[in-house]
Amino acid sequence: MHHHFHIHSVVVIGSGNVAGHLAKAMHDAGLDIVQVFSPHIGHARSLADRFRAEATNDYSKIKTDADFYLLAVPDGEIAHVAARMPETEGMVCHTSGSTSLQVLEKFPYRGVFYPFQTFSRNRAVDISAVPFCLEASDPYVLKALQYLAGKLSGSVHVMGLKQREKLHLAGVLVNNFTNHLYALGAAFLEENHLDAGLLLPLIKETAAKVCELPADEVQTGPARRDDMATIEGHLRILKNKNDLKEIYQIFSQQILKKYHE
Amino acid sequence: MHHHFHIHSVVVIGSGNVAGHLAKAMHDAGLDIVQVFSPHIGHARSLADRFRAEATNDYSKIKTDADFYLLAVPDGEIAHVAARMPETEGMVCHTSGSTSLQVLEKFPYRGVFYPFQTFSRNRAVDISAVPFCLEASDPYVLKALQYLAGKLSGSVHVMGLKQREKLHLAGVLVNNFTNHLYALGAAFLEENHLDAGLLLPLIKETAAKVCELPADEVQTGPARRDDMATIEGHLRILKNKNDLKEIYQIFSQQILKKYHE
Repeated sequence: MHHHFHIHSVVVIGSGNVAGHLAKAMHDAGLDIVQVFSPHIGHARSLADRFRAEATNDYSKIKTDADFYLLAVPDGEIAHVAARMPETEGMVCHTSGSTSLQVLEKFPYRGVFYPFQTFSRNRAVDISAVPFCLEASDPYVLKALQYLAGKLSGSVHVMGLKQREKLHLAGVLVNNFTNHLYALGAAFLEENHLDAGLLLPLIKETAAKVCELPADEVQTGPARRDDMATIEGHLRILKNKNDLKEIYQIFSQQILKKYHE
Repeated sequence: MHHHFHIHSVVVIGSGNVAGHLAKAMHDAGLDIVQVFSPHIGHARSLADRFRAEATNDYSKIKTDADFYLLAVPDGEIAHVAARMPETEGMVCHTSGSTSLQVLEKFPYRGVFYPFQTFSRNRAVDISAVPFCLEASDPYVLKALQYLAGKLSGSVHVMGLKQREKLHLAGVLVNNFTNHLYALGAAFLEENHLDAGLLLPLIKETAAKVCELPADEVQTGPARRDDMATIEGHLRILKNKNDLKEIYQIFSQQILKKYHE
């Protein structure tokens, strides 16, 4: 049993955005992507080709002698994919914020390698600033994961499932829900024959500002200044827009309560 | 009666963030800030000193021969301040998204000069990208405002009150409400002994991504992929957090409905 892991060869299980971005980052850091598995052989091939790696869609063909297995598949499929993977003495890590390490129990060396970022096809991300949240089955695996994550990013954190889930939840707020606000704002402007692009300087500045000052301290707007005339005017404009009105009311109530009660 | 306005001398009414940022931008564009009025003489002075301008807190001392009066005061005070200002043949403009041009009716040359951006003390903003939304009492005033706004920014738009109000409303969504989500996310992490700074790379990427791709097309997260197990797990974590739970439920419902019905 080896207690000092050296991670060089990597098998990537999955071919989505997380798999693609992390595989590229590991490749760029000098690791060797030796194989990509996906149930869709075309997807496996197109990712594998970027690293001159082998592609397979056959669980029984997954190499068993790699140092590291990056299991980057949708949360709901991790257990199923793990069950079908061959046994290995390599380290097997999933990349999910909300999944327990236990689903990888069949592997003696297992971990969580959760990048706290949103990845899209065709958009480069600055991996060096992405927080990597790690958990491991033993201290040796943890040390190896810390070393690996440290090659990719300056932001490496060890945390268990409960904290990881909470971080994921906060990510849902500032990414998924914020993006829904962007979509609502853009659709509302377009319905009213205004260019949705008008929002972009404001969106950028809002995000840039919170990187320098706590959000609590830079809250502005009608609810923040208890400007009921403007709030009521906006609600009149939204009288037939149920989704927007619901969100407008709840946010205004919460901000009024927070700053004026 | 002059029909071709030349704007060179500017009186600034107000000393808040909008007044400060616009005065600086006009000064940098070569205009002459000749006077700053604020009911708080100290505030008037500290802004006026940046441009070697005169400061006053006395309505009767407001110069009447300036070319341009920038009325940058809180929405609820515009009518009151306008009523107390001396008469002038200069152009008088307010900077409000939700206020009618009519409140300036006593001035023969009046307009709206609404910068669609959030301004904070101690934060420089790239004025050249800020959308300026203009309205005017006549075509000559409009032309002068377009020329002035064009010196400050590459994004100049003419619109009436109804459209301006809608733009302002969309700004409330993508700035005020987004910032409230940032604040909720940060507070939630801190309560759980996690560093709120972990959110920043994700916040930045979310804003950067929407500048390149429509928000509709880049929506991700548990609700987007109909992942009820994760949504229910998050709601369990939030069972005693009423504000967050309310927002989590409404956004998840809206996103589920939008993409899965």
